[in-house]
Amino acid sequence: MQMQLRIPGPTPLPPDILQAMTKQMVNHRGKEFAGIIGQTTSRLKEFFQTQSDVLILTCSGTGGLEAAVVNTLSPGDRVLAVSAGVFGDRFSEIAGLYGAQVTRLDFPWERGPDPDGVKRALQKDPGIKAVLLTHNETSTGVTSDLEALTAVVREFDKLILVDAISSLGCIDLPTDAWGCDVVVTGSQKGWMAPPGLAMVSVNARAWVANAMAGIPRYYLDFSLAKKFLEKGQTPWTPAVTAFYALAASLEVMAQEGLPAIVARHGRVGKAAREGAKSLGLSLFADEARASNTVTAINVPEGVESAKLLPYLRDELGIVLSGGQGPLDGKIFRIGHLGWVSEEDIGAIIQGLKKGLAGGG
Amino acid sequence: MQMQLRIPGPTPLPPDILQAMTKQMVNHRGKEFAGIIGQTTSRLKEFFQTQSDVLILTCSGTGGLEAAVVNTLSPGDRVLAVSAGVFGDRFSEIAGLYGAQVTRLDFPWERGPDPDGVKRALQKDPGIKAVLLTHNETSTGVTSDLEALTAVVREFDKLILVDAISSLGCIDLPTDAWGCDVVVTGSQKGWMAPPGLAMVSVNARAWVANAMAGIPRYYLDFSLAKKFLEKGQTPWTPAVTAFYALAASLEVMAQEGLPAIVARHGRVGKAAREGAKSLGLSLFADEARASNTVTAINVPEGVESAKLLPYLRDELGIVLSGGQGPLDGKIFRIGHLGWVSEEDIGAIIQGLKKGLAGGG
Repeated sequence: MQMQLRIPGPTPLPPDILQAMTKQMVNHRGKEFAGIIGQTTSRLKEFFQTQSDVLILTCSGTGGLEAAVVNTLSPGDRVLAVSAGVFGDRFSEIAGLYGAQVTRLDFPWERGPDPDGVKRALQKDPGIKAVLLTHNETSTGVTSDLEALTAVVREFDKLILVDAISSLGCIDLPTDAWGCDVVVTGSQKGWMAPPGLAMVSVNARAWVANAMAGIPRYYLDFSLAKKFLEKGQTPWTPAVTAFYALAASLEVMAQEGLPAIVARHGRVGKAAREGAKSLGLSLFADEARASNTVTAINVPEGVESAKLLPYLRDELGIVLSGGQGPLDGKIFRIGHLGWVSEEDIGAIIQGLKKGLAGGG
Repeated sequence: MQMQLRIPGPTPLPPDILQAMTKQMVNHRGKEFAGIIGQTTSRLKEFFQTQSDVLILTCSGTGGLEAAVVNTLSPGDRVLAVSAGVFGDRFSEIAGLYGAQVTRLDFPWERGPDPDGVKRALQKDPGIKAVLLTHNETSTGVTSDLEALTAVVREFDKLILVDAISSLGCIDLPTDAWGCDVVVTGSQKGWMAPPGLAMVSVNARAWVANAMAGIPRYYLDFSLAKKFLEKGQTPWTPAVTAFYALAASLEVMAQEGLPAIVARHGRVGKAAREGAKSLGLSLFADEARASNTVTAINVPEGVESAKLLPYLRDELGIVLSGGQGPLDGKIFRIGHLGWVSEEDIGAIIQGLKKGLAGGG
């Protein structure tokens, strides 16, 4: 049975990118790897829409979030953690664990953060140094209004750390134009590459913060990564195979071009939402903020997701995700990012129709 | 030109293992990945020669060293860092950076640590909580007498953290028999897999230390890794492709069997040393402690390694490593671990002969 993996990451890899990983190992301190990391970094900057540094760390997206925190903050720093889902909570938890004084600002999970609420919180507490934002909340399928949110935060001149793990390269995020100081994404999301690399942009304001940041760090240290990148290397042995895949996928992405990729995700997201509604299903996210990379669907009455999802997987070869944390059993999620077309989503909706009839 | 990559990691992957990485992504929270991590972990325990836990983290070997430190120590803990090379220094640096009070105990790089010296240091300072040891110093090609060193440290009942990144799976290291509390290795060394995974054993004593360890940790947290492993998962998205490769390589390794693998590395190491000497070259390491995975050769008078190594690479397709830190320009290193035979080393020695005649 041909499996259709439609979770919000890892995402399927096109055959050419799978094949790119059969390339033999090279010396990670040699000129060939220097060429790969140089070109990959420069391509990533285009997709991040930034002139600033982009660093590639060998870790998952969560490692990238941790890197954003430990490289810019000191224990005791006041942080406003804006959250409307499991991953916003995680970002907040990481900052707290490393000693930041975190003020949590929670918003309804169906709608995501409200810029006015963020504004009031910043007015109330002038001591805040940094704001944690989630561009696309993978657990709810809500894309926040990052343009409006960053505009508010910039008024107050705070450091802006952005989790864009499941949005960047799929949903428009002009890093420099919106003044995002650190933006984190992960190779296994929209990038059509395997998990194992976090890609992180670091702008001049973030470097200033980095120079004063007192949280200890070593493996995930930004300044070591930058120093080694200047000679075409990484401080520690990188996930070479994942670099091969990422280099190949960026080639494909560059051919399609960011505007076309963003438009395709727009069509695919709409197809997922319309398709779900055509089956009489209701969407978890407010449609005004619905994500073009993940669609969260409310589990309909009389259906158990603990039966539906295994049925879809085992009988129809369709792999979807359940809900996380408090949404476990209440929603299920279709991932539609990276290597995905409207036809792919059509097939998923057809399968879902069968699944709801047969397995729910 | 067919490249012969003979650096001490990344090491070449056999064709079947390269091919194993073309397998499509799966849900990292599904039953298929649970099967892979379950079998991989259980095979690793055989190669670690341990009944304790083995955790697989998505990071490089250095990330594994950092994990060993942050998961077992608290700021202010007294640590004896035994070092005789760049990687012993790195382990020491990590512990210090995270707030341990480190006593450095340096030994001659050519010979590695002396158990009596370690004994005297432990007698002198009863307040020491943990001892950092390097099994195989990749920067010098010296294998320490870990059996004797651990015997000494156990007399004093200290926590034993071992860097076995470039030895485990190649050189005998009976983790339980020698009482090693945490042992770290990396996928790109003897394991014939790509870089991106650190594999770490954690025994009961280390778990006790873990429960009291006060250094903050999140991405590299052992107890989260153990909790998720119990359900066949990792806390964060794992490097799925690297798992495919590691699963395939462990299958090959299990067929050969650890004793045969250790014996093969013994023959290969000897071939490298004898071959180098047959060219009139001298070895950096005292032969009594010479490593069977890395051979460090003194750059002969009249030869510049900055010319020799590029010549070998560009003209003959032989990729060797230079010296690191203070040994830069003074030695060069042949890596012979993982997928390597005596014939492979014979070809390297032949190439080296040509290189010394033509390019040095």
